[in-house]
Amino acid sequence: MPPFDPALRDAATLVEARLAAILAKEPDRGSPPRLIDAMRHAVLGGGKRFRPFLVLESAQLFGVSPQAAIDAAAAIECIHCYSLVHDDMPAMDNDELRRGRPTVWKAFGEWSAILVGDGLQALAFELVSAPSAHSDPAVRAELVHTLAIASGSPGMVGGQALDLEAENSLPASVADVAHITRLQSMKTGALIRAACEMGAIAGQASPDQRAALVRYGEALGVAFQISDDLLDAEGSAADVGKATGKDAAAGKATLVSLLGIADARRHLDTTVQAAVDALAPFGAKADVLREAARFMGRRDS
Amino acid sequence: MPPFDPALRDAATLVEARLAAILAKEPDRGSPPRLIDAMRHAVLGGGKRFRPFLVLESAQLFGVSPQAAIDAAAAIECIHCYSLVHDDMPAMDNDELRRGRPTVWKAFGEWSAILVGDGLQALAFELVSAPSAHSDPAVRAELVHTLAIASGSPGMVGGQALDLEAENSLPASVADVAHITRLQSMKTGALIRAACEMGAIAGQASPDQRAALVRYGEALGVAFQISDDLLDAEGSAADVGKATGKDAAAGKATLVSLLGIADARRHLDTTVQAAVDALAPFGAKADVLREAARFMGRRDS
Repeated sequence: MPPFDPALRDAATLVEARLAAILAKEPDRGSPPRLIDAMRHAVLGGGKRFRPFLVLESAQLFGVSPQAAIDAAAAIECIHCYSLVHDDMPAMDNDELRRGRPTVWKAFGEWSAILVGDGLQALAFELVSAPSAHSDPAVRAELVHTLAIASGSPGMVGGQALDLEAENSLPASVADVAHITRLQSMKTGALIRAACEMGAIAGQASPDQRAALVRYGEALGVAFQISDDLLDAEGSAADVGKATGKDAAAGKATLVSLLGIADARRHLDTTVQAAVDALAPFGAKADVLREAARFMGRRDS
Repeated sequence: MPPFDPALRDAATLVEARLAAILAKEPDRGSPPRLIDAMRHAVLGGGKRFRPFLVLESAQLFGVSPQAAIDAAAAIECIHCYSLVHDDMPAMDNDELRRGRPTVWKAFGEWSAILVGDGLQALAFELVSAPSAHSDPAVRAELVHTLAIASGSPGMVGGQALDLEAENSLPASVADVAHITRLQSMKTGALIRAACEMGAIAGQASPDQRAALVRYGEALGVAFQISDDLLDAEGSAADVGKATGKDAAAGKATLVSLLGIADARRHLDTTVQAAVDALAPFGAKADVLREAARFMGRRDS
């Protein structure tokens, strides 16, 4: 995903610097050097930082500066990175390369990869509960709560379990549109939705404003996933920057394989419009978030 | 470890019931049934519940009822259980049995075990950040922060990394008393100390009271580990309820192997006394915690 806006690049730069600064302090508090190297490998050196971008942009709607929301943004990125480290493992997706570099288990061994993921998850909750995340402890507690639900068994972890159940043809997995929609809304949608909601929490939004951002995040997550599936089905490897046709080769059901390309594209357009519509209460301040949604609708064209 | 006091049995009963009730609600919020079964396997059906007991007993010093502190206690048990699930995996300790039952990876597969651990960690932070954990959000945020640091790379996860580095003879591991002490204070000590500190936090203790409970927890963690190592070196399998001589057979350095049994026993006695002394400010209310420390000193005799 190329940056659709300088705001995405700026967020990535800010988050990368903050994560580097956080990990640079680990030796002072006794974290083992080799474990820190592996955590650094997992977290630094690239990534779109799309979820932190959503936290920062959503918070900014309420006048919260990127600097003030940076630890909530860094925390959600730690969760995203830990999930990639564990998903890459031989027992899960068995991937040896990520962004052109060896995955953590390949570079540091499997037990290190398990511990890197575990340590990054703990670090995420440490960051978001620390006074530096927000001056109001009620905001910090709510950030933790939202992130924990989105990343746990009712969210990201549960979605990954459903995905692996389907891959391993375990009984409960029926590859219909309802099941795939639920699986994806948990596996990737929950964290995208939480990113937007965490921005609203950090901004001490009203219940209506917060609900609007949740609706936006919900639709954005669906659009993100359909556009990913369309890219996989239609795109060339050069455009996408990774192998395409992987889902079809793996016999993996997606909305594209179930609905066909034309219907999936129509569904994508409707979803992008729903995301844009959800931002109506915020006026021009939400233009960057609008552009992020529209970008999902044209990623594959 | 047989119950040294009815308080330990009562705490175990309370925590088991709370964990069962929490997991019973998982289907309603969409967590996948098979994943919940595996989480249930990891969390229910036994265990001394020593860390939750410490949370409840420490909180009770400040007039906080077990019912009021139960979610903080359940949260630390979720962390402890997730660490066992991951530690048992083939890439870590490769254990097939725990408490006479198949370990999670053995019963549900490796990818399920990774996800069960990840989901339990998230659940721990969800529990401790929820309004039911404490009415004051500042208390909740501090409970999260303390638990995150204790369980992460500067604590439990880092200690496990050091332990596996030693087992795999990676360069940084020197089996001297200082290194083993540091490793154990991270791997098992951090969570025991955090349990006592979380009780103090839930009880809104003064800084002095909180520091006293941290000193107690620190000493208790050391005593717990030495008594475990003495049991392994001296005890019969029948007394201990698990295989003994495992450390020596694995060539694993412990304080017992480095100091010898007599010196290790003296160190244990000193440490138990330090734990008891730390409780002086609390008078007779701390008798159960005193008895827990003294119990460590006579576990192997």
